[in-house]
Amino acid sequence: MSLGPSGEAIVLIGRKPTMNYVLATTLPLNEGRKVVVKARGRAISKAVDVVEVVRRRFVKDVQVENVKIGTEEGRVGSDGRPRNVSIIEIVLAPPTSATSSASSKKK
Amino acid sequence: MSLGPSGEAIVLIGRKPTMNYVLATTLPLNEGRKVVVKARGRAISKAVDVVEVVRRRFVKDVQVENVKIGTEEGRVGSDGRPRNVSIIEIVLAPPTSATSSASSKKK
Repeated sequence: MSLGPSGEAIVLIGRKPTMNYVLATTLPLNEGRKVVVKARGRAISKAVDVVEVVRRRFVKDVQVENVKIGTEEGRVGSDGRPRNVSIIEIVLAPPTSATSSASSKKK
Repeated sequence: MSLGPSGEAIVLIGRKPTMNYVLATTLPLNEGRKVVVKARGRAISKAVDVVEVVRRRFVKDVQVENVKIGTEEGRVGSDGRPRNVSIIEIVLAPPTSATSSASSKKK
């Protein structure tokens, strides 16, 4: 876990078990901080799983503030050729957050 | 491909090659219709790939109007026990769309 520009926690989804990332996401939310869950390629499915487990079992009133999809260019594949990879970024805000730029609880 | 309540095309991502779904998504967009790309479980990553390929190579000015994540409950797994599965729905609007309820080109 690392920190983003405005102090939000960043959880980058990789090959560890889902529950590892669920915990890494739950802890900062419980401290009242925002979390950005990021994933690339096949880990994108796991990122959605992580957010859904957090939302349903650990931090019930978490707000899914934004879901962004995109492409990361120029990564080099196992064959040495550049290839693009899809990415997802899911921004989660803690339940009691009355933050400034929040986009008013859209579902 | 099927039709949603307001005439939008629905593309459900499965096990076929990515380009099949890219085509199924591009055609209605080129006819000026909205498309909802839906996927469950591991296919979620492929859904993001499909949207990114469409956006970068086929329909450059497509608008990603909304990305919704959620959980589908009560599906029965291979062991006969009920299990939850994550889902994603990505709403795409054609470039020239001046639709009513559009959320004004947010990125």
